[in-house]
Amino acid sequence: MRKLLQRPKAPGLEPGTLVHVGERKPQEPRATVLRYGDGRVEERAIDLCEGCPVIEAGAGITWISVTGIADQDVLERLGECFGLHRLVLEDIMNADQRVKVDDFGDYLYVVVKAIEWREAEQEIGSEQISIVLGPHFVISLQEADPDCFAPLRERLIAGKARALEMGADFLAYALLDLIVDRYFVALEKLGDEVELMEDDLIEDPSPELLQSIHRVKREMIFLRKSTWPLREVVGALERRETPLITHAVAPYLRDLYDHTVQVIDSIEALRDLTAGMLDIYLSSVSNRLNVVMKLLAVIGAVFMPLTFIVGVYGMNFQLMPELGWRWGYPVVLTAMAGIAGWMLCAFRRRGWL
Amino acid sequence: MRKLLQRPKAPGLEPGTLVHVGERKPQEPRATVLRYGDGRVEERAIDLCEGCPVIEAGAGITWISVTGIADQDVLERLGECFGLHRLVLEDIMNADQRVKVDDFGDYLYVVVKAIEWREAEQEIGSEQISIVLGPHFVISLQEADPDCFAPLRERLIAGKARALEMGADFLAYALLDLIVDRYFVALEKLGDEVELMEDDLIEDPSPELLQSIHRVKREMIFLRKSTWPLREVVGALERRETPLITHAVAPYLRDLYDHTVQVIDSIEALRDLTAGMLDIYLSSVSNRLNVVMKLLAVIGAVFMPLTFIVGVYGMNFQLMPELGWRWGYPVVLTAMAGIAGWMLCAFRRRGWL
Amino acid sequence: MRKLLQRPKAPGLEPGTLVHVGERKPQEPRATVLRYGDGRVEERAIDLCEGCPVIEAGAGITWISVTGIADQDVLERLGECFGLHRLVLEDIMNADQRVKVDDFGDYLYVVVKAIEWREAEQEIGSEQISIVLGPHFVISLQEADPDCFAPLRERLIAGKARALEMGADFLAYALLDLIVDRYFVALEKLGDEVELMEDDLIEDPSPELLQSIHRVKREMIFLRKSTWPLREVVGALERRETPLITHAVAPYLRDLYDHTVQVIDSIEALRDLTAGMLDIYLSSVSNRLNVVMKLLAVIGAVFMPLTFIVGVYGMNFQLMPELGWRWGYPVVLTAMAGIAGWMLCAFRRRGWL
Amino acid sequence: MRKLLQRPKAPGLEPGTLVHVGERKPQEPRATVLRYGDGRVEERAIDLCEGCPVIEAGAGITWISVTGIADQDVLERLGECFGLHRLVLEDIMNADQRVKVDDFGDYLYVVVKAIEWREAEQEIGSEQISIVLGPHFVISLQEADPDCFAPLRERLIAGKARALEMGADFLAYALLDLIVDRYFVALEKLGDEVELMEDDLIEDPSPELLQSIHRVKREMIFLRKSTWPLREVVGALERRETPLITHAVAPYLRDLYDHTVQVIDSIEALRDLTAGMLDIYLSSVSNRLNVVMKLLAVIGAVFMPLTFIVGVYGMNFQLMPELGWRWGYPVVLTAMAGIAGWMLCAFRRRGWL
Amino acid sequence: MRKLLQRPKAPGLEPGTLVHVGERKPQEPRATVLRYGDGRVEERAIDLCEGCPVIEAGAGITWISVTGIADQDVLERLGECFGLHRLVLEDIMNADQRVKVDDFGDYLYVVVKAIEWREAEQEIGSEQISIVLGPHFVISLQEADPDCFAPLRERLIAGKARALEMGADFLAYALLDLIVDRYFVALEKLGDEVELMEDDLIEDPSPELLQSIHRVKREMIFLRKSTWPLREVVGALERRETPLITHAVAPYLRDLYDHTVQVIDSIEALRDLTAGMLDIYLSSVSNRLNVVMKLLAVIGAVFMPLTFIVGVYGMNFQLMPELGWRWGYPVVLTAMAGIAGWMLCAFRRRGWL
Repeated sequence: MRKLLQRPKAPGLEPGTLVHVGERKPQEPRATVLRYGDGRVEERAIDLCEGCPVIEAGAGITWISVTGIADQDVLERLGECFGLHRLVLEDIMNADQRVKVDDFGDYLYVVVKAIEWREAEQEIGSEQISIVLGPHFVISLQEADPDCFAPLRERLIAGKARALEMGADFLAYALLDLIVDRYFVALEKLGDEVELMEDDLIEDPSPELLQSIHRVKREMIFLRKSTWPLREVVGALERRETPLITHAVAPYLRDLYDHTVQVIDSIEALRDLTAGMLDIYLSSVSNRLNVVMKLLAVIGAVFMPLTFIVGVYGMNFQLMPELGWRWGYPVVLTAMAGIAGWMLCAFRRRGWL
Repeated sequence: MRKLLQRPKAPGLEPGTLVHVGERKPQEPRATVLRYGDGRVEERAIDLCEGCPVIEAGAGITWISVTGIADQDVLERLGECFGLHRLVLEDIMNADQRVKVDDFGDYLYVVVKAIEWREAEQEIGSEQISIVLGPHFVISLQEADPDCFAPLRERLIAGKARALEMGADFLAYALLDLIVDRYFVALEKLGDEVELMEDDLIEDPSPELLQSIHRVKREMIFLRKSTWPLREVVGALERRETPLITHAVAPYLRDLYDHTVQVIDSIEALRDLTAGMLDIYLSSVSNRLNVVMKLLAVIGAVFMPLTFIVGVYGMNFQLMPELGWRWGYPVVLTAMAGIAGWMLCAFRRRGWL
Repeated sequence: MRKLLQRPKAPGLEPGTLVHVGERKPQEPRATVLRYGDGRVEERAIDLCEGCPVIEAGAGITWISVTGIADQDVLERLGECFGLHRLVLEDIMNADQRVKVDDFGDYLYVVVKAIEWREAEQEIGSEQISIVLGPHFVISLQEADPDCFAPLRERLIAGKARALEMGADFLAYALLDLIVDRYFVALEKLGDEVELMEDDLIEDPSPELLQSIHRVKREMIFLRKSTWPLREVVGALERRETPLITHAVAPYLRDLYDHTVQVIDSIEALRDLTAGMLDIYLSSVSNRLNVVMKLLAVIGAVFMPLTFIVGVYGMNFQLMPELGWRWGYPVVLTAMAGIAGWMLCAFRRRGWL
Repeated sequence: MRKLLQRPKAPGLEPGTLVHVGERKPQEPRATVLRYGDGRVEERAIDLCEGCPVIEAGAGITWISVTGIADQDVLERLGECFGLHRLVLEDIMNADQRVKVDDFGDYLYVVVKAIEWREAEQEIGSEQISIVLGPHFVISLQEADPDCFAPLRERLIAGKARALEMGADFLAYALLDLIVDRYFVALEKLGDEVELMEDDLIEDPSPELLQSIHRVKREMIFLRKSTWPLREVVGALERRETPLITHAVAPYLRDLYDHTVQVIDSIEALRDLTAGMLDIYLSSVSNRLNVVMKLLAVIGAVFMPLTFIVGVYGMNFQLMPELGWRWGYPVVLTAMAGIAGWMLCAFRRRGWL
Repeated sequence: MRKLLQRPKAPGLEPGTLVHVGERKPQEPRATVLRYGDGRVEERAIDLCEGCPVIEAGAGITWISVTGIADQDVLERLGECFGLHRLVLEDIMNADQRVKVDDFGDYLYVVVKAIEWREAEQEIGSEQISIVLGPHFVISLQEADPDCFAPLRERLIAGKARALEMGADFLAYALLDLIVDRYFVALEKLGDEVELMEDDLIEDPSPELLQSIHRVKREMIFLRKSTWPLREVVGALERRETPLITHAVAPYLRDLYDHTVQVIDSIEALRDLTAGMLDIYLSSVSNRLNVVMKLLAVIGAVFMPLTFIVGVYGMNFQLMPELGWRWGYPVVLTAMAGIAGWMLCAFRRRGWL
């Protein structure tokens, strides 16, 4: 239930109070600064407790990547350095935010859910990632340390990323692009699972399959909850209502928007498919019940009359002439075989056998 | 049914007639005035029958909190003091209002439902709260006396609330914020219940579970009815179409709006989950029926032929050569054991056992 | 079916042809004129066949209330007096109109359905009411004579109605307000019925309950058909796109709008509730089927083996050593008791008993 | 299936190629011209192969009514005379168009479906009607010759139609009005059928009823496909975005719009009703299954124990003391009667009998 | 599952990286250039590896048709020649795009899915087609080589196509028109299949039918995913927000838009139809179960009492007077026949036989 319900703050607390909310054990905050521009790329780890990472205008783009968001002091210092609103700090510390983008004039604050397919649990895991986009910097904050952004980091350090020639808005776009890419991986896994379920649906409608259908439905509900607002977020960025997003990034954001729409289309298609599966399951179970009942009816229809007949000749009346007849027994046996045969033929003609 | 249906006024009455409508026994009206500004905070109980609580402009913010709304005289005096429209007074006295915000130019009139989880009845209770926001004052009115606003009051008196530095609009926001916080608590409880139901769904689909599903659905319908208009209310406030809402409160209202959207998202997610549960329940029950019928079919298929065979040798024909055979009895017993064994094998192969 | 389908005019007729359409037997047209203003209130019955009720501008407000709409001549005279469009006259004579408001510049033409709970038939009855709002007059026309407007008339004559101080638009509002009030009464009755159904749903899912569910669904469909356009009508009036609606009536119309929204909310909530009830009914019936089948399976599982055993010892083989044993009979009896007991234990452990 | 699927043109053909598409056998094209204005009305049949019917401006209104649309030459000549776009001609020849209105500046092209209730097949038939509205003329084209427009023609010739005093736009409106009128007739028939189905639903849920429900659903789907775009068409005309529609026709088009909305409302109401019927049918069938199973269970529960008991005393043990007792037989008979009676009482108390 | 899920790019890759994605084995790129204008039409195959097909302005329209999109070099050269954005090249190489239109100012980039009915697999196949529309040229790119565009090519070479007299925008329209035509063919096939299913639905609800229903539902989901965005694409082109689309093509695009709407209408109609089929299937299966159970109940009700009676007279009590009666045996036989007859009559009266 945790994944479907979220509590953005502790009830009754002053708005803007910095309290960590999240399921995971809070990690020590760690931060790296990656600065590039004028052909130079430089990366170093910094200690957020020490002081503010200086950001000089004109000196290229700075990407501050923070892991571990549970330390109130660190966040307050970060807030002072970059002039972030208290509510932004509160939202960053809380891992149960809704996916959204807030425009504070000087900077954009974006919250998204990065999902990943957890092979071990065979389910979709998710992590909240906050991105702050300023004129010359991008801050990315997350609870734990997945390797979500590793490909971009490597390309930047190798000096081969397109981001090197563009502004901070492209960097923010590139981060979102990596996050959206993950959705396709998770969807493919879910799709495989649905396909397995489809095979069993009519052949073998077991209670386990029912459990699987319910589980997949749950994952769908969770995915929908994350992706519909994600589309809104990317759509809002693409409409470029803020000067922080430049013209050059527009086609990339449009491309990203298409991708999120594609994610949603796929989720909806899977959802439609799974929705119908329960009805088919029920029909399938009813079909099987029909098979069982037909067998029972056939057995009953064949043996009840026969048992009655042998019962008749098991009666102890003193005057039952048939009992003394020479061919009585074989005649009765033959008659019964005839009745049974006729019954079976009738059932076969009806298609019950 | 009471909770789902509401009757905003007695039929046929003149519009603007002050009549108390509500399920609870009306309480004596009690009021406290909390005034703050220039670093001073002052709280005192007042007697609404005596006269008007004077509100001097420029003298800080005044929060009048009224409990008990069934006394017509008190409300009329309040209406005169603050220049409230007769329809507002009628709405305040009626605990079955729709959640809404009305802009009367000089003041805003907001009606919301504060919900709480009633541990004893294991259900969601709700209370209507009216909030009147003027330029320098906020009036909150409610039927009974829940401790919904206690945290804010304590922070104000302790001189630690952010509201102390801001206007009346922030105070109104802070009240709404406390109300919305409650929804998350109730949702979490409902979520726990749904999770319990999910465990039983396939393992033990009992009629009690059916009852629970229906009850939870009912609660969902009630919650939806309260929260969708709540979102509209907060959204209307956030769009700041009135000078009563200042620029400084905008990010807070946006934050609150996000929270209401999150409440709605969670309700919809739970609703989707519960909606599918009935189908799974039915499938589960059908599965069990299948198990029962298979057992019956197996028993019938094994014992009906055997009973027929023993019936045959119970017949009283004088000429039944087998009866006289030395090995007749053991041969028949063995044959029957063979038939039974073969049947059981066949059923096991089909997976019925 | 009649209530759900409506035929606004006879097919193939010239548009604007005055033909009475309706299920009820047409009544003699009767009319009363109620004129008020300058502190005077005056009511008298008039004969519409005689001539036009004169309406002098500035002489206060005139409310002409007509019952019986089947007489073509009367309607034509009325149309001439007040300059009504032929299509309006056609619509007035036809009791199967859609709820709507038409703005003809000089006057507004409003059609609504007044519903009432018919205690005898335990169902919702409806009557069409046409309201024509001009600058200084209101004409209300209806098929039969329900006491829908009686409270207002009495208040007006008693000189205590707020309408006395306001314009014709307030009078029209007051009429609509009385009509909307009726919806809450009918909804409450429906709600009581649904509540009764809920009690039986899991305890006693009878075919009669099925009939009730279907009947309530039908009533819901009918109510939705009337109330959704009613909301549009009141919303259109509230937006005051015509000078016929003055500023002073705006808060009242907003209040009325809130009431219609509340009616719709309640209908939708009931609808959601009833929609789920059929699924629960089906699950409930399946549960009961399960109970029946379990009983049958238990009886079969207990008695079929026993009957087989006694059949074995009823066989007439000459050489059946057990038959001659001294303790044969008691041993078999005991063995059968043991088998039966073991079976019952097994079933009880499975929870089937 | 034909009725639900439509193919607007042969695949791969050049757009604008005139090919007749339709299910019916193409008819010889026949045309009549009806001209009126200045108090004169004149009707005559013309031969479209001969030449263009001359339309002088200012000489009143001309209504050309064409039946049989499969002749390419005739249509091309018509297209030349009135300056129609090639795509319009293509659409006219194709009886599988979507209901729509196209504004070509000089003229409007409207396609609608005229439906009729076919008493013989007990189903709804439909025919496509194209209407071209120019400044002084209206052309109506249809595949076969239903008497859809007969009432208008007769009124025109009799000199009693309102159309005589108005422009070509009113004539087009009058044609559409006649077409929409037909929908009410068909709906009433469908409604009667649904009502019949409702009666059987709980009393007698037969497979034939299932067939009927499916058939009615199909008709609904077809009707929705025709009427929703019809509403758009009439709505577009009513908004008068073209000078071809004059102010005087506006109230008539609004009236017509109301009628189409009413058609849609009725279809949706019937649809809601039918949608619920399948669920009730299934519940009803399950109820009946329950009745059957209860009977079987009662019979089994009564006779299986009794048969076991008589089996016991049919055993051939030499030492069965009861067999020799004087009152053994009557005691056993009485005991069995007691057991049966007790069972029946128990079942009656449970409400199974 | 493949058809429902799409992955627009490999995760983690730099945006704009040219990587081929698709299920089919990549083909050698082949290209033909078709140039027409001033009455001349010229077609030749070109080698894309060699160089740029020169496009002189004013020299008519050039249609470059490329098959095989897996070669990165070829695409990069194409991109340079026509100044295409890197993201366009990436999208072209990826056969899993969403249907869309992107406006890059100088050119439009359109992605659509061409579907075809694969007779062998009895399913709908689809291929992605990219269309780039510039001021004087159209480039169409596709994975493999279906004969989708053959009719247009032949008409162009034969000099009979309307496209010869119009601009590049008409050529692009003509390509889209051919693609949309294919949808009608596939829909007709699906419609035939649904019709076959309808016949079996109530007569013979087999598990194979269930499989068919599920398969058709899947195809519907896939079709919806392709056609709804297709409508958006054609609608966007029709609104002519770019100078690349001229006024002369507008009616053709409107016609095309109508066709896509018609495709969607038909899909939705089929979907509605299929949606109801599962419910009817389930009802049908329940009906059959009822038939089986009734038979079983009748057999049980007839033979269980009879078997009990013969059991009674099979008991071995020494004192059973009836056994010695002369007419005992015939009386019992007659009584049993009477009971059986009465039972059968009772069941026939209930309609169970």
